[in-house]
Amino acid sequence: MQLIGVLGQGLVDPTTPVVHADDLGFTRGDGCFEGCRVIDGAVDKIELHVARIHRSAAALGITFDEPAWLALITEVIAAWPGGAEGSMRWFLTRGRAGAAEPTGIVTISELPAAFEPQRRDGVRAVTLSRGTAYDAFADAAWLLGGVKTISYAVNMAAQREAARRGADDVIFLSADGQVLEAPTSSVVWTVGNSMHTIPTGANGILESTTQLRLFERAAEQGWRTVLTDAVVDDLHAADAVFLAGTVRGPVDVIELDGRARGRDVDLVRTVQKLAGF
Amino acid sequence: MQLIGVLGQGLVDPTTPVVHADDLGFTRGDGCFEGCRVIDGAVDKIELHVARIHRSAAALGITFDEPAWLALITEVIAAWPGGAEGSMRWFLTRGRAGAAEPTGIVTISELPAAFEPQRRDGVRAVTLSRGTAYDAFADAAWLLGGVKTISYAVNMAAQREAARRGADDVIFLSADGQVLEAPTSSVVWTVGNSMHTIPTGANGILESTTQLRLFERAAEQGWRTVLTDAVVDDLHAADAVFLAGTVRGPVDVIELDGRARGRDVDLVRTVQKLAGF
Repeated sequence: MQLIGVLGQGLVDPTTPVVHADDLGFTRGDGCFEGCRVIDGAVDKIELHVARIHRSAAALGITFDEPAWLALITEVIAAWPGGAEGSMRWFLTRGRAGAAEPTGIVTISELPAAFEPQRRDGVRAVTLSRGTAYDAFADAAWLLGGVKTISYAVNMAAQREAARRGADDVIFLSADGQVLEAPTSSVVWTVGNSMHTIPTGANGILESTTQLRLFERAAEQGWRTVLTDAVVDDLHAADAVFLAGTVRGPVDVIELDGRARGRDVDLVRTVQKLAGF
Repeated sequence: MQLIGVLGQGLVDPTTPVVHADDLGFTRGDGCFEGCRVIDGAVDKIELHVARIHRSAAALGITFDEPAWLALITEVIAAWPGGAEGSMRWFLTRGRAGAAEPTGIVTISELPAAFEPQRRDGVRAVTLSRGTAYDAFADAAWLLGGVKTISYAVNMAAQREAARRGADDVIFLSADGQVLEAPTSSVVWTVGNSMHTIPTGANGILESTTQLRLFERAAEQGWRTVLTDAVVDDLHAADAVFLAGTVRGPVDVIELDGRARGRDVDLVRTVQKLAGF
Protein backbone atom coordinates (compact mmCIF):
# COMPACT_ATOMS: atom_id res chain seq x y z
CA MET A 1 0.00 0.00 0.00
CA GLN A 2 1.18 3.47 -0.80
CA LEU A 3 -0.36 6.93 -0.53
CA ILE A 4 0.85 9.95 -2.51
CA GLY A 5 0.11 13.62 -2.02
CA VAL A 6 1.30 16.45 -4.24
CA LEU A 7 1.72 20.02 -3.03
CA GLY A 8 -0.99 22.13 -4.63
CA GLN A 9 -3.04 19.06 -5.56
CA GLY A 10 -3.57 16.99 -2.42
CA LEU A 11 -3.96 13.22 -2.49
CA VAL A 12 -3.56 11.73 -5.96
CA ASP A 13 -3.99 8.31 -7.54
CA PRO A 14 -0.98 6.38 -6.20
CA THR A 15 -0.62 4.32 -9.39
CA THR A 16 0.12 7.22 -11.76
CA PRO A 17 3.36 9.17 -12.28
CA VAL A 18 3.54 12.58 -10.57
CA VAL A 19 7.03 13.83 -11.43
CA HIS A 20 7.80 15.56 -14.75
CA ALA A 21 10.78 14.36 -16.78
CA ASP A 22 12.39 17.81 -16.50
CA ASP A 23 11.97 18.13 -12.72
CA LEU A 24 15.37 19.12 -11.38
CA GLY A 25 14.84 16.72 -8.49
CA PHE A 26 14.82 13.92 -11.05
CA THR A 27 17.37 15.19 -13.57
CA ARG A 28 19.91 16.55 -11.08
CA GLY A 29 19.01 15.18 -7.64
CA ASP A 30 18.48 18.86 -6.82
CA GLY A 31 16.20 18.80 -3.80
CA CYS A 32 15.94 17.59 -0.23
CA PHE A 33 13.79 15.19 1.74
CA GLU A 34 12.73 13.99 5.14
CA GLY A 35 11.95 10.44 6.18
CA CYS A 36 9.41 10.26 9.01
CA ARG A 37 7.77 7.61 11.13
CA VAL A 38 3.97 7.60 11.13
CA ILE A 39 2.54 5.97 14.21
CA ASP A 40 -0.81 6.26 15.98
CA GLY A 41 -2.05 8.54 13.20
CA ALA A 42 0.65 11.17 13.55
CA VAL A 43 4.21 11.97 12.49
CA ASP A 44 6.60 11.16 15.33
CA LYS A 45 8.72 14.18 16.38
CA ILE A 46 7.35 16.21 13.46
CA GLU A 47 8.79 19.43 14.87
CA LEU A 48 12.33 18.10 14.42
CA HIS A 49 11.65 17.08 10.81
CA VAL A 50 10.09 20.45 10.01
CA ALA A 51 13.09 22.22 11.51
CA ARG A 52 15.52 20.09 9.52
CA ILE A 53 13.79 20.44 6.14
CA HIS A 54 13.70 24.20 6.73
CA ARG A 55 17.49 24.10 7.06
CA SER A 56 17.95 21.82 4.04
CA ALA A 57 15.68 24.00 1.90
CA ALA A 58 17.46 27.18 2.99
CA ALA A 59 20.86 25.69 2.14
CA LEU A 60 19.58 24.81 -1.33
CA GLY A 61 17.76 28.13 -1.81
CA ILE A 62 14.38 26.40 -2.22
CA THR A 63 11.20 27.65 -0.53
CA PHE A 64 9.59 25.40 2.10
CA ASP A 65 6.02 26.66 2.53
CA GLU A 66 5.37 25.22 5.98
CA PRO A 67 1.58 25.79 6.23
CA ALA A 68 0.96 24.26 2.80
CA TRP A 69 3.16 21.27 3.65
CA LEU A 70 1.51 20.69 7.03
CA ALA A 71 -1.90 20.74 5.38
CA LEU A 72 -0.76 18.20 2.79
CA ILE A 73 0.84 15.97 5.44
CA THR A 74 -2.38 16.06 7.48
CA GLU A 75 -4.44 15.15 4.43
CA VAL A 76 -2.22 12.17 3.56
CA ILE A 77 -2.09 10.84 7.12
CA ALA A 78 -5.88 11.04 7.40
CA ALA A 79 -6.07 8.49 4.58
CA TRP A 80 -3.62 6.08 6.25
CA PRO A 81 -5.14 3.24 8.32
CA GLY A 82 -5.31 4.49 11.92
CA GLY A 83 -2.63 3.05 14.15
CA ALA A 84 -0.63 1.35 11.40
CA GLU A 85 3.08 2.16 11.48
CA GLY A 86 4.16 3.76 8.21
CA SER A 87 7.21 5.16 6.48
CA MET A 88 6.51 8.72 5.31
CA ARG A 89 8.70 10.82 3.05
CA TRP A 90 8.61 14.48 2.13
CA PHE A 91 10.34 15.40 -1.14
CA LEU A 92 11.02 19.06 -1.92
CA THR A 93 12.76 19.78 -5.24
CA ARG A 94 13.75 22.88 -7.16
CA GLY A 95 10.86 22.15 -9.52
CA ARG A 96 10.72 21.86 -13.29
CA ALA A 97 13.43 23.39 -15.45
CA GLY A 98 12.65 27.08 -15.84
CA ALA A 99 9.71 26.97 -13.41
CA ALA A 100 9.40 29.33 -10.46
CA GLU A 101 7.67 26.84 -8.17
CA PRO A 102 9.31 23.99 -6.25
CA THR A 103 7.87 20.50 -6.38
CA GLY A 104 6.50 18.95 -3.17
CA ILE A 105 5.53 15.30 -2.78
CA VAL A 106 4.49 13.35 0.33
CA THR A 107 4.34 9.55 0.38
CA ILE A 108 3.47 6.94 2.98
CA SER A 109 4.23 3.28 2.55
CA GLU A 110 4.56 0.19 4.70
CA LEU A 111 7.84 -0.46 6.47
CA PRO A 112 10.55 -2.37 4.60
CA ALA A 113 10.32 -6.05 5.51
CA ALA A 114 13.88 -6.06 6.83
CA PHE A 115 13.21 -3.53 9.59
CA GLU A 116 11.33 -5.77 12.05
CA PRO A 117 14.03 -8.49 12.18
CA GLN A 118 16.77 -5.83 12.29
CA ARG A 119 15.11 -4.13 15.25
CA ARG A 120 14.93 -7.49 17.02
CA ASP A 121 18.23 -9.10 16.00
CA GLY A 122 20.53 -6.19 15.15
CA VAL A 123 22.62 -5.59 12.01
CA ARG A 124 26.08 -6.45 10.71
CA ALA A 125 27.99 -3.35 9.61
CA VAL A 126 31.18 -2.63 7.69
CA THR A 127 33.18 0.61 7.69
CA LEU A 128 33.76 2.32 4.33
CA SER A 129 35.57 5.53 3.47
CA ARG A 130 33.41 8.50 2.48
CA GLY A 131 36.42 9.98 0.63
CA THR A 132 36.41 13.33 2.43
CA ALA A 133 38.70 14.60 5.17
CA TYR A 134 37.08 15.17 8.58
CA ASP A 135 37.20 18.95 8.06
CA ALA A 136 36.34 18.98 4.32
CA PHE A 137 33.06 20.84 4.73
CA ALA A 138 34.42 23.85 6.63
CA ASP A 139 33.84 27.04 4.61
CA ALA A 140 32.52 25.00 1.67
CA ALA A 141 28.75 25.46 1.71
CA TRP A 142 28.50 24.16 -1.89
CA LEU A 143 29.47 20.67 -0.67
CA LEU A 144 26.08 20.64 1.13
CA GLY A 145 27.37 19.17 4.37
CA GLY A 146 24.50 18.53 6.78
CA VAL A 147 21.91 18.97 4.01
CA LYS A 148 19.58 16.02 3.46
CA THR A 149 19.60 16.11 -0.36
CA ILE A 150 18.02 13.48 -2.58
CA SER A 151 21.44 12.92 -4.24
CA TYR A 152 21.96 9.64 -2.39
CA ALA A 153 23.59 7.55 -5.13
CA VAL A 154 26.78 7.07 -3.09
CA ASN A 155 24.79 6.18 0.05
CA MET A 156 22.92 3.52 -1.92
CA ALA A 157 26.11 2.21 -3.56
CA ALA A 158 27.72 1.91 -0.14
CA GLN A 159 24.82 -0.21 1.12
CA ARG A 160 25.18 -2.46 -1.95
CA GLU A 161 28.90 -2.78 -1.15
CA ALA A 162 27.94 -3.83 2.39
CA ALA A 163 25.67 -6.53 0.98
CA ARG A 164 28.52 -7.76 -1.25
CA ARG A 165 30.59 -8.10 1.92
CA GLY A 166 27.86 -10.06 3.69
CA ALA A 167 26.75 -7.16 5.89
CA ASP A 168 23.51 -5.21 6.30
CA ASP A 169 24.72 -1.63 6.60
CA VAL A 170 27.66 0.77 6.56
CA ILE A 171 29.45 3.11 8.91
CA PHE A 172 31.19 5.81 6.88
CA LEU A 173 34.65 6.96 7.92
CA SER A 174 36.40 10.14 6.86
CA ALA A 175 39.48 9.74 4.67
CA ASP A 176 41.51 10.29 7.85
CA GLY A 177 39.76 7.49 9.73
CA GLN A 178 37.23 9.36 11.86
CA VAL A 179 33.76 7.88 12.37
CA LEU A 180 31.05 9.84 10.50
CA GLU A 181 27.56 8.37 10.08
CA ALA A 182 25.68 5.57 8.30
CA PRO A 183 24.15 6.08 4.82
CA THR A 184 20.63 6.54 6.23
CA SER A 185 21.19 6.82 10.00
CA SER A 186 23.54 8.17 12.63
CA VAL A 187 25.98 6.31 14.88
CA VAL A 188 25.36 6.16 18.64
CA TRP A 189 27.32 4.11 21.17
CA THR A 190 27.19 3.51 24.89
CA VAL A 191 29.97 3.08 27.43
CA GLY A 192 28.68 2.42 30.94
CA ASN A 193 26.20 5.16 31.72
CA SER A 194 27.38 7.40 28.86
CA MET A 195 25.70 7.69 25.48
CA HIS A 196 27.84 9.06 22.63
CA THR A 197 27.46 10.37 19.10
CA ILE A 198 29.56 12.35 16.60
CA PRO A 199 29.11 16.14 16.60
CA THR A 200 27.92 17.74 13.37
CA GLY A 201 29.88 20.53 11.70
CA ALA A 202 32.88 20.57 9.37
CA ASN A 203 32.63 16.79 8.93
CA GLY A 204 29.47 17.29 6.86
CA ILE A 205 27.30 14.74 8.68
CA LEU A 206 23.58 15.17 8.99
CA GLU A 207 21.95 16.08 12.29
CA SER A 208 19.89 13.05 13.30
CA THR A 209 16.39 13.64 14.64
CA THR A 210 16.37 10.15 16.18
CA GLN A 211 19.63 10.80 18.04
CA LEU A 212 18.35 14.20 19.24
CA ARG A 213 15.18 12.66 20.63
CA LEU A 214 17.03 9.68 22.10
CA PHE A 215 19.60 11.86 23.88
CA GLU A 216 16.93 14.17 25.26
CA ARG A 217 15.03 11.21 26.75
CA ALA A 218 18.23 9.48 27.89
CA ALA A 219 19.39 12.60 29.75
CA GLU A 220 16.02 12.72 31.53
CA GLN A 221 16.65 9.14 32.67
CA GLY A 222 20.07 9.93 34.07
CA TRP A 223 22.34 9.00 31.17
CA ARG A 224 25.38 11.19 30.51
CA THR A 225 25.16 12.30 26.85
CA VAL A 226 28.34 13.14 24.97
CA LEU A 227 29.16 14.60 21.55
CA THR A 228 32.66 13.43 20.66
CA ASP A 229 34.90 12.43 17.77
CA ALA A 230 35.71 8.74 17.48
CA VAL A 231 37.71 6.18 15.55
CA VAL A 232 36.72 2.58 14.82
CA ASP A 233 38.51 1.26 17.89
CA ASP A 234 36.23 3.41 20.06
CA LEU A 235 33.27 1.56 18.57
CA HIS A 236 34.89 -1.83 19.13
CA ALA A 237 35.43 -0.84 22.77
CA ALA A 238 31.85 0.37 23.34
CA ASP A 239 29.25 -1.63 25.26
CA ALA A 240 26.80 -1.25 22.38
CA VAL A 241 26.82 0.50 18.99
CA PHE A 242 23.59 1.62 17.34
CA LEU A 243 22.60 2.89 13.91
CA ALA A 244 19.84 5.36 14.74
CA GLY A 245 17.34 6.12 11.97
CA THR A 246 13.89 7.64 12.03
CA VAL A 247 11.77 4.76 10.75
CA ARG A 248 13.89 1.76 11.73
CA GLY A 249 14.74 3.29 15.11
CA PRO A 250 17.99 2.41 16.86
CA VAL A 251 19.26 -1.01 15.76
CA ASP A 252 22.34 -2.46 17.38
CA VAL A 253 25.48 -3.50 15.53
CA ILE A 254 26.13 -7.18 16.26
CA GLU A 255 29.17 -7.45 13.99
CA LEU A 256 31.55 -4.70 12.86
CA ASP A 257 33.99 -5.33 10.01
CA GLY A 258 33.62 -9.05 10.58
CA ARG A 259 34.24 -8.90 14.34
CA ALA A 260 31.31 -10.20 16.38
CA ARG A 261 30.27 -7.98 19.26
CA GLY A 262 28.87 -9.09 22.62
CA ARG A 263 25.18 -8.31 22.89
CA ASP A 264 23.28 -7.13 25.96
CA VAL A 265 19.67 -7.46 24.85
CA ASP A 266 18.33 -5.56 27.87
CA LEU A 267 20.57 -2.60 27.01
CA VAL A 268 19.40 -2.73 23.38
CA ARG A 269 15.73 -2.73 24.40
CA THR A 270 16.34 0.10 26.87
CA VAL A 271 17.84 2.31 24.16
CA GLN A 272 15.12 1.44 21.65
CA LYS A 273 12.44 2.20 24.22
CA LEU A 274 14.03 5.56 25.05
CA ALA A 275 13.79 6.45 21.34
CA GLY A 276 10.11 5.46 21.27
CA PHE A 277 10.47 1.96 19.77
CA MET B 1 9.69 22.87 -27.04
CA GLN B 2 10.39 19.55 -25.44
CA LEU B 3 10.01 15.93 -26.50
CA ILE B 4 9.83 13.00 -24.11
CA GLY B 5 10.16 9.30 -24.77
CA VAL B 6 9.77 6.53 -22.21
CA LEU B 7 11.40 3.12 -22.53
CA GLY B 8 8.68 0.57 -23.24
CA GLN B 9 6.18 3.27 -24.25
CA GLY B 10 7.83 5.44 -26.93
CA LEU B 11 6.98 9.12 -27.38
CA VAL B 12 4.57 10.45 -24.76
CA ASP B 13 2.66 13.67 -24.17
CA PRO B 14 5.43 16.07 -23.05
CA THR B 15 3.11 17.98 -20.69
CA THR B 16 2.31 15.06 -18.36
CA PRO B 17 4.41 13.54 -15.55
CA VAL B 18 6.22 10.30 -16.42
CA VAL B 19 8.16 9.48 -13.23
CA HIS B 20 6.54 7.69 -10.29
CA ALA B 21 6.96 9.15 -6.81
CA ASP B 22 8.73 5.98 -5.65
CA ASP B 23 11.19 5.83 -8.56
CA LEU B 24 14.61 5.38 -6.98
CA GLY B 25 15.99 7.85 -9.51
CA PHE B 26 13.77 10.47 -7.91
CA THR B 27 13.86 9.42 -4.26
CA ARG B 28 17.58 8.55 -4.08
CA GLY B 29 19.24 9.98 -7.20
CA ASP B 30 19.97 6.32 -7.93
CA GLY B 31 20.57 6.26 -11.66
CA CYS B 32 22.79 7.60 -14.41
CA PHE B 33 22.40 9.80 -17.46
CA GLU B 34 23.96 11.05 -20.65
CA GLY B 35 23.71 14.52 -22.13
CA CYS B 36 23.98 14.52 -25.92
CA ARG B 37 24.02 17.04 -28.73
CA VAL B 38 21.44 16.53 -31.43
CA ILE B 39 22.45 18.15 -34.70
CA ASP B 40 21.46 17.48 -38.31
CA GLY B 41 18.94 14.92 -37.16
CA ALA B 42 21.40 12.71 -35.30
CA VAL B 43 23.17 12.33 -31.95
CA ASP B 44 26.73 13.62 -32.27
CA LYS B 45 29.34 10.98 -31.32
CA ILE B 46 26.58 8.62 -30.16
CA GLU B 47 29.02 5.69 -29.91
CA LEU B 48 30.93 7.48 -27.14
CA HIS B 49 27.74 8.18 -25.17
CA VAL B 50 26.53 4.59 -25.53
CA ALA B 51 29.90 3.31 -24.33
CA ARG B 52 29.84 5.65 -21.34
CA ILE B 53 26.29 4.87 -20.20
CA HIS B 54 27.14 1.17 -20.48
CA ARG B 55 29.97 1.80 -17.97
CA SER B 56 27.80 3.95 -15.66
CA ALA B 57 25.01 1.36 -15.69
CA ALA B 58 27.43 -1.49 -15.00
CA ALA B 59 28.94 0.40 -12.05
CA LEU B 60 25.45 0.88 -10.61
CA GLY B 61 24.32 -2.66 -11.39
CA ILE B 62 21.48 -1.43 -13.65
CA THR B 63 20.70 -3.00 -17.03
CA PHE B 64 21.19 -0.85 -20.13
CA ASP B 65 19.23 -2.55 -22.92
CA GLU B 66 21.07 -1.00 -25.87
CA PRO B 67 18.74 -2.09 -28.72
CA ALA B 68 15.64 -0.83 -26.88
CA TRP B 69 17.36 2.47 -26.05
CA LEU B 70 18.58 3.03 -29.62
CA ALA B 71 15.07 2.40 -30.93
CA LEU B 72 13.64 4.92 -28.46
CA ILE B 73 16.32 7.51 -29.27
CA THR B 74 15.62 7.09 -32.99
CA GLU B 75 11.88 7.55 -32.42
CA VAL B 76 12.39 10.74 -30.38
CA ILE B 77 14.86 12.27 -32.83
CA ALA B 78 12.50 11.58 -35.73
CA ALA B 79 9.98 13.93 -34.06
CA TRP B 80 12.54 16.71 -33.60
CA PRO B 81 12.61 19.45 -36.29
CA GLY B 82 15.25 18.40 -38.85
CA GLY B 83 18.47 20.34 -38.57
CA ALA B 84 17.63 22.11 -35.29
CA GLU B 85 20.34 21.83 -32.64
CA GLY B 86 18.95 20.19 -29.50
CA SER B 87 19.97 19.09 -26.03
CA MET B 88 19.14 15.43 -25.53
CA ARG B 89 19.29 13.52 -22.27
CA TRP B 90 19.06 9.83 -21.49
CA PHE B 91 18.02 8.96 -17.92
CA LEU B 92 18.42 5.40 -16.68
CA THR B 93 17.31 4.72 -13.09
CA ARG B 94 17.03 1.66 -10.86
CA GLY B 95 13.27 1.88 -11.35
CA ARG B 96 10.44 1.93 -8.85
CA ALA B 97 10.93 0.65 -5.32
CA GLY B 98 10.62 -3.12 -5.40
CA ALA B 99 10.33 -3.26 -9.20
CA ALA B 100 12.55 -5.48 -11.31
CA GLU B 101 12.69 -3.12 -14.30
CA PRO B 102 14.81 0.03 -14.62
CA THR B 103 13.26 3.30 -15.78
CA GLY B 104 14.43 4.82 -19.06
CA ILE B 105 13.54 8.32 -20.25
CA VAL B 106 14.80 10.29 -23.26
CA THR B 107 14.22 14.03 -23.62
CA ILE B 108 15.14 16.64 -26.20
CA SER B 109 14.85 20.35 -25.56
CA GLU B 110 16.21 23.55 -26.98
CA LEU B 111 19.63 24.75 -25.91
CA PRO B 112 19.87 26.90 -22.76
CA ALA B 113 19.87 30.58 -23.78
CA ALA B 114 23.25 31.14 -22.13
CA PHE B 115 25.11 28.70 -24.37
CA GLU B 116 25.30 30.79 -27.56
CA PRO B 117 26.86 33.88 -25.87
CA GLN B 118 29.17 31.62 -23.83
CA ARG B 119 30.40 29.88 -26.97
CA ARG B 120 31.10 33.28 -28.51
CA ASP B 121 32.40 35.26 -25.52
CA GLY B 122 33.74 32.64 -23.11
CA VAL B 123 33.02 32.16 -19.41
CA ARG B 124 34.33 33.41 -16.08
CA ALA B 125 35.26 30.53 -13.76
CA VAL B 126 36.15 30.12 -10.10
CA THR B 127 37.94 27.20 -8.48
CA LEU B 128 36.16 25.39 -5.63
CA SER B 129 37.22 22.39 -3.57
CA ARG B 130 35.46 19.10 -4.26
CA GLY B 131 36.36 17.96 -0.75
CA THR B 132 38.10 14.73 -1.81
CA ALA B 133 41.81 13.95 -1.98
CA TYR B 134 43.22 13.36 -5.48
CA ASP B 135 43.43 9.60 -4.83
CA ALA B 136 40.19 9.25 -2.84
CA PHE B 137 38.48 6.99 -5.37
CA ALA B 138 41.18 4.31 -5.54
CA ASP B 139 39.77 0.94 -4.39
CA ALA B 140 36.48 2.64 -3.37
CA ALA B 141 34.00 1.66 -6.08
CA TRP B 142 31.06 2.71 -3.85
CA LEU B 143 32.12 6.37 -4.21
CA LEU B 144 31.10 6.03 -7.89
CA GLY B 145 34.11 7.85 -9.30
CA GLY B 146 33.79 8.25 -13.06
CA VAL B 147 30.09 7.30 -12.96
CA LYS B 148 27.71 9.88 -14.44
CA THR B 149 25.01 9.56 -11.78
CA ILE B 150 21.96 11.82 -11.51
CA SER B 151 23.03 12.71 -7.93
CA TYR B 152 24.26 16.14 -9.04
CA ALA B 153 23.13 18.28 -6.08
CA VAL B 154 26.71 19.31 -5.25
CA ASN B 155 27.49 20.10 -8.89
CA MET B 156 24.44 22.37 -9.03
CA ALA B 157 25.25 24.00 -5.67
CA ALA B 158 28.78 24.72 -6.90
CA GLN B 159 27.41 26.49 -9.98
CA ARG B 160 25.15 28.59 -7.72
CA GLU B 161 28.21 29.45 -5.62
CA ALA B 162 29.96 30.57 -8.82
CA ALA B 163 27.03 32.85 -9.62
CA ARG B 164 27.21 34.32 -6.11
CA ARG B 165 30.85 35.12 -6.84
CA GLY B 166 30.00 36.79 -10.13
CA ALA B 167 31.22 33.91 -12.29
CA ASP B 168 29.57 31.56 -14.78
CA ASP B 169 31.09 28.21 -13.94
CA VAL B 170 33.38 26.23 -11.66
CA ILE B 171 36.62 24.28 -11.88
CA PHE B 172 36.71 21.72 -9.06
CA LEU B 173 39.98 21.12 -7.24
CA SER B 174 40.84 18.15 -5.06
CA ALA B 175 41.31 18.82 -1.35
CA ASP B 176 45.05 18.75 -2.04
CA GLY B 177 44.86 21.39 -4.77
CA GLN B 178 44.89 19.32 -7.98
CA VAL B 179 42.68 20.36 -10.91
CA LEU B 180 39.76 17.95 -11.44
CA GLU B 181 36.88 18.90 -13.74
CA ALA B 182 33.95 21.30 -14.01
CA PRO B 183 30.47 20.39 -12.67
CA THR B 184 29.15 19.56 -16.15
CA SER B 185 32.25 19.59 -18.34
CA SER B 186 35.95 18.71 -18.41
CA VAL B 187 38.97 21.01 -18.31
CA VAL B 188 41.23 21.31 -21.38
CA TRP B 189 44.12 23.73 -21.83
CA THR B 190 46.61 24.54 -24.55
CA VAL B 191 50.28 25.50 -24.33
CA GLY B 192 51.81 26.18 -27.74
CA ASN B 193 51.04 23.17 -29.90
CA SER B 194 50.11 20.95 -26.95
CA MET B 195 46.58 20.23 -25.77
CA HIS B 196 46.19 19.00 -22.20
CA THR B 197 43.58 17.44 -19.96
CA ILE B 198 43.47 15.62 -16.61
CA PRO B 199 43.69 11.81 -16.70
CA THR B 200 40.77 9.87 -15.22
CA GLY B 201 41.30 7.29 -12.49
CA ALA B 202 41.66 7.49 -8.72
CA ASN B 203 40.66 11.19 -8.82
CA GLY B 204 37.08 10.15 -9.64
CA ILE B 205 36.56 12.49 -12.60
CA LEU B 206 34.30 11.57 -15.46
CA GLU B 207 35.68 10.65 -18.85
CA SER B 208 34.60 13.44 -21.22
CA THR B 209 33.26 12.45 -24.62
CA THR B 210 33.87 16.00 -25.89
CA GLN B 211 37.51 15.89 -24.81
CA LEU B 212 37.97 12.44 -26.36
CA ARG B 213 36.59 13.62 -29.70
CA LEU B 214 38.51 16.90 -29.55
CA PHE B 215 41.84 15.20 -28.80
CA GLU B 216 41.32 12.63 -31.56
CA ARG B 217 40.70 15.39 -34.12
CA ALA B 218 43.46 17.60 -32.72
CA ALA B 219 46.01 14.79 -33.00
CA GLU B 220 45.02 14.31 -36.64
CA GLN B 221 45.78 18.01 -37.20
CA GLY B 222 49.25 17.79 -35.68
CA TRP B 223 48.57 18.82 -32.07
CA ARG B 224 50.45 17.04 -29.33
CA THR B 225 47.84 15.70 -26.87
CA VAL B 226 48.78 15.18 -23.24
CA LEU B 227 47.06 13.64 -20.18
CA THR B 228 48.65 15.21 -17.13
CA ASP B 229 47.94 16.33 -13.57
CA ALA B 230 47.80 20.08 -13.01
CA VAL B 231 47.44 22.76 -10.36
CA VAL B 232 45.74 26.12 -10.79
CA ASP B 233 49.01 27.86 -11.70
CA ASP B 234 49.28 25.55 -14.71
CA LEU B 235 45.93 26.91 -15.91
CA HIS B 236 46.97 30.51 -15.30
CA ALA B 237 50.12 29.82 -17.38
CA ALA B 238 48.25 28.18 -20.29
CA ASP B 239 47.58 29.93 -23.60
CA ALA B 240 43.89 29.05 -23.35
CA VAL B 241 41.71 27.12 -20.89
CA PHE B 242 38.47 25.48 -21.98
CA LEU B 243 35.51 23.88 -20.26
CA ALA B 244 34.56 21.11 -22.69
CA GLY B 245 30.96 19.86 -22.51
CA THR B 246 28.86 17.90 -24.95
CA VAL B 247 26.08 20.37 -25.75
CA ARG B 248 27.83 23.69 -25.09
CA GLY B 249 31.04 22.49 -26.72
CA PRO B 250 34.42 23.91 -25.65
CA VAL B 251 34.02 27.40 -24.17
CA ASP B 252 37.09 29.34 -23.15
CA VAL B 253 37.76 30.69 -19.67
CA ILE B 254 38.23 34.46 -19.92
CA GLU B 255 38.63 35.00 -16.17
CA LEU B 256 39.82 32.52 -13.53
CA ASP B 257 39.36 33.31 -9.83
CA GLY B 258 39.02 36.99 -10.72
CA ARG B 259 42.17 37.13 -12.86
CA ALA B 260 41.44 38.14 -16.45
CA ARG B 261 43.08 35.95 -19.08
CA GLY B 262 44.39 37.08 -22.45
CA ARG B 263 42.16 35.83 -25.25
CA ASP B 264 43.25 34.59 -28.68
CA VAL B 265 39.95 34.37 -30.53
CA ASP B 266 41.49 32.49 -33.48
CA LEU B 267 42.77 29.82 -31.10
CA VAL B 268 39.35 29.56 -29.44
CA ARG B 269 37.59 29.13 -32.77
CA THR B 270 40.17 26.55 -33.90
CA VAL B 271 39.54 24.41 -30.82
CA GLN B 272 35.76 24.75 -31.07
CA LYS B 273 35.88 23.79 -34.75
CA LEU B 274 38.03 20.74 -33.97
CA ALA B 275 35.31 19.62 -31.54
CA GLY B 276 32.63 20.10 -34.20
CA PHE B 277 31.31 23.51 -33.10
